[in-house]
Amino acid sequence: MSAPDDRVTAAVLIIGNEVLSGRTQDKNLGFLARELNRLGVQVREARVIPDVDEVIVASVNALRERYTYVFTTGGIGPTHDDITAAAIAHAFDVPLERNAEAVRRLEDYYRRAQVPFKLNASRLRMADMPQGVRLIDNPVSQAPGFRMENVFVLAGVPSIMQAMFDGVKHSLVGGAEVRSREFVVHVPEGDMAEALGGLQQRFPDVDMGSYPFMRAGRFGTSVVLRSANVERLEFAVEEFRALAQAIGGEPEETRASDPPAV
Amino acid sequence: MSAPDDRVTAAVLIIGNEVLSGRTQDKNLGFLARELNRLGVQVREARVIPDVDEVIVASVNALRERYTYVFTTGGIGPTHDDITAAAIAHAFDVPLERNAEAVRRLEDYYRRAQVPFKLNASRLRMADMPQGVRLIDNPVSQAPGFRMENVFVLAGVPSIMQAMFDGVKHSLVGGAEVRSREFVVHVPEGDMAEALGGLQQRFPDVDMGSYPFMRAGRFGTSVVLRSANVERLEFAVEEFRALAQAIGGEPEETRASDPPAV
Repeated sequence: MSAPDDRVTAAVLIIGNEVLSGRTQDKNLGFLARELNRLGVQVREARVIPDVDEVIVASVNALRERYTYVFTTGGIGPTHDDITAAAIAHAFDVPLERNAEAVRRLEDYYRRAQVPFKLNASRLRMADMPQGVRLIDNPVSQAPGFRMENVFVLAGVPSIMQAMFDGVKHSLVGGAEVRSREFVVHVPEGDMAEALGGLQQRFPDVDMGSYPFMRAGRFGTSVVLRSANVERLEFAVEEFRALAQAIGGEPEETRASDPPAV
Repeated sequence: MSAPDDRVTAAVLIIGNEVLSGRTQDKNLGFLARELNRLGVQVREARVIPDVDEVIVASVNALRERYTYVFTTGGIGPTHDDITAAAIAHAFDVPLERNAEAVRRLEDYYRRAQVPFKLNASRLRMADMPQGVRLIDNPVSQAPGFRMENVFVLAGVPSIMQAMFDGVKHSLVGGAEVRSREFVVHVPEGDMAEALGGLQQRFPDVDMGSYPFMRAGRFGTSVVLRSANVERLEFAVEEFRALAQAIGGEPEETRASDPPAV
């Protein structure tokens, strides 16, 4: 059986030396994965790459062919290391041009009395975009992101990225949302593996993940069941409860992610 | 000038549906990036992929050709969703076989009085490895990781992954460590962009990153300077201090990462 969630997919491309050097802990992948899932879009791959033109170009071109949507984060600010817009233009083989509407928005913003900065040449660079884009609103600091075909170019700062995503999510055409149920069982993973593997075989349309943990000296296992088919998911959950009880562990439901907890 | 840090590179391959769904926040990339940098190995790319055989195979084969080392995390436990070892065997086109030394270690471990579990068939699967591997010690729970040519296969649980890495890091042949200096300036990024861009042009061997922030209503910029050439780094730092002072911001050094703060 081909699960409906295979039909609409996405990749996340995290652009930034600071994530790759371990200086900054990325928080954008988790947000995008959870939000996209609610819309029925499954994140199938993420990449973290440096601010290097040819690497961005190769990654964007590989991912936009392979997935329904691509979301990039980072590299759209005013400094020399912000090269994402130029790289996207290279990836699509179109000119980089100063976007008139983006200039207008920046002019409006920096004219406001409460914004104490000037729209200088560096900040105007944030209006340089590939030819043919649609702008993505930035309600935080105005400098827009943009969409080029199936590629959404978002800011790296999480609060701005999230606000940009809120503005575009209505335009995404999703599939079925994947629902998930999560349980903790105080049985070590290796003691439950065989039975759980058997259950997975009987439910190929329900994805079962198993994650061991040790807390306060006790071994246990978190089990996550995921499916776009709610009925099958409920059926698998019932069988999983019976399975865990037979092994000697009463499963405790830890989080119903409908919608997923953020 | 070709920087010495270009010579020894690595990629990190994070294998696991739980990271891609947003359920789990990855902590392994940051650890590996910082630790590898200390050894003079630069992480150039990271990918997060699902527990799907053909995706693991394609990713491992792409990355092991391109970088000096590849580190994978996740998917080497006893349950049905732990398929990393089999996928690595497919990637290298060698048989998956039960590793006798790994079996011996598991037998020793589960024979101990203080380990209340049995070495069942599921746990024995953790000894199935591609033909030709070298084992990587697991001082936490014994089930070993392994090295296949330039690919290091590590656990996903951070404490175990870190212990495994500690055991193999002596075997890595690194290049020059990239040192970094980090400053906070209370000047908005857009006001410093032009001068910083000019400084970057005069120091192509010093990588300069600029990250805006807003704290307590004040705009500011974090600037990170990185280079494997300590003298050039110091020279660039002096010029950066002068530049920031000229714009009206006294730079505060926030973190000397020699060694990097973890």
